[in-house]
Amino acid sequence: MARPVAYLGPPGTFTEQAARKDNPQADLESFPSIQGVALAVASGIADEGVAPIENSLEGSVNDTLDILIRQPALFIRRELVLPIAHCLLAASGAGAGDLEIIYSHPQALGQCRDFLERCFPKVQLVASLSTAAAVEDMMESGPKAAAIAPGQAARLHGVEILATGIQDNNSNMTRFVVLSGSDSPPTGDDKTSLCFSFGEDRPGLLHEVLGEFARRDINLAKVESRPSKQFLGDYVFLMDVHGHREEPAVKEALRSLKGRSSMFRVFGSYPRWRGSTHP
Amino acid sequence: MARPVAYLGPPGTFTEQAARKDNPQADLESFPSIQGVALAVASGIADEGVAPIENSLEGSVNDTLDILIRQPALFIRRELVLPIAHCLLAASGAGAGDLEIIYSHPQALGQCRDFLERCFPKVQLVASLSTAAAVEDMMESGPKAAAIAPGQAARLHGVEILATGIQDNNSNMTRFVVLSGSDSPPTGDDKTSLCFSFGEDRPGLLHEVLGEFARRDINLAKVESRPSKQFLGDYVFLMDVHGHREEPAVKEALRSLKGRSSMFRVFGSYPRWRGSTHP
Repeated sequence: MARPVAYLGPPGTFTEQAARKDNPQADLESFPSIQGVALAVASGIADEGVAPIENSLEGSVNDTLDILIRQPALFIRRELVLPIAHCLLAASGAGAGDLEIIYSHPQALGQCRDFLERCFPKVQLVASLSTAAAVEDMMESGPKAAAIAPGQAARLHGVEILATGIQDNNSNMTRFVVLSGSDSPPTGDDKTSLCFSFGEDRPGLLHEVLGEFARRDINLAKVESRPSKQFLGDYVFLMDVHGHREEPAVKEALRSLKGRSSMFRVFGSYPRWRGSTHP
Repeated sequence: MARPVAYLGPPGTFTEQAARKDNPQADLESFPSIQGVALAVASGIADEGVAPIENSLEGSVNDTLDILIRQPALFIRRELVLPIAHCLLAASGAGAGDLEIIYSHPQALGQCRDFLERCFPKVQLVASLSTAAAVEDMMESGPKAAAIAPGQAARLHGVEILATGIQDNNSNMTRFVVLSGSDSPPTGDDKTSLCFSFGEDRPGLLHEVLGEFARRDINLAKVESRPSKQFLGDYVFLMDVHGHREEPAVKEALRSLKGRSSMFRVFGSYPRWRGSTHP
């Protein structure tokens, strides 16, 4: 029997949408945290796991980055991008003027900051574990509560949609990664994600590293830093570059980078998202 | 009459500790959000405002970065670093086994993730606006609630400390910035913070920019990226470099960077934190 695909649940999250879009035939199993999804894949409970990694308004999902940095058994096998449209949900009959508390995932609350500050400046905002969990929190909390969640969560739970498209910006997109025990073979249009850190601190180190890619005409899709968690001001750099780790130019640049860094890990090479589904 | 110093309140937050350490004589006024602190300074209600910008475990405080990117009237005048020791607080008589809900600021919940997952895997975690607000939320919520907050919040509210030093890592430090209408004059040991973005996407652009600093032996203290909020994959880069913007080498590098970027803003030059208080 095929093992299931783990995703950040409960049912009704944008991550569930992403998992279904990535593989409509898969048997999906929800986990309550990104750490849970990662452990399900690393331990073999699930074959693949789907987690958000970056949003166009709020930026990186730090939990996912920190897991990739620290979990050597996990690789990125695919990526996919979904448009995110948030709705304000409430129990049937509840009016916007009655609301005292609004639940959602912190990223969703952040993505709707302008709407919330303008329309509900006095309402208490409470973080839930996911947008779908926010709907459950709202239902337990009574008629003065609302939740920010995907529209399909309203259908799933039989609650009302008070407002749609409440995100601050219509270019709200989230990038998801499919985590697995291995990455993907070359397709000719790939990305490679990696992280590294330096054991020393001198001018120009990062410049030299970027030079390894620039001189080989390898485009950087993203550069990011995360705390090393050792001491303040000590960072792990994360990078997405165009190309597959088996392509000679990328391979050489990675080899040279590995030689310069005190910590180095390739999260994997995978097809660049072009709007298509499961390759 | 001197105008007050705004800080991310309410009283009892680590930011209040930082504001007092920065200027023990100041008249402090608390604001409920980082956006509120920024607006108080930009509008002239407060002369200076104190906000967290980076934690050694959780990374950057995105609200503060996004405000600096978008608010041209605000500059960084000073920085200071405080060690962060979190405590678990509860009403007198409450036992750890009775807890059903724990409140704190999302950064503090993140900093105590291991402790919470091991000791309270089934307890509901709820985000509050600040660690001090978490204590108020806890007190309103009843005897099954606890809060993660600084130890002095326990004294302020007359509640009990159930556990101390519960952060995942003893190197937990937070860097704060003092925001104002202008930055600081050169002291000989300064930092300069800035942001920029490119109007185009070609291999090597970021490498060229870092080269402007590397070739002048200017050390990079930090490189970070935030979403431009225009579209996914479009970033604003934030950088801290050693030196003052009036030093010739830094001045030249900044001029050259400005010429290469489509958006460019210097957040200010200010004395590098060396463990001292108000200079």
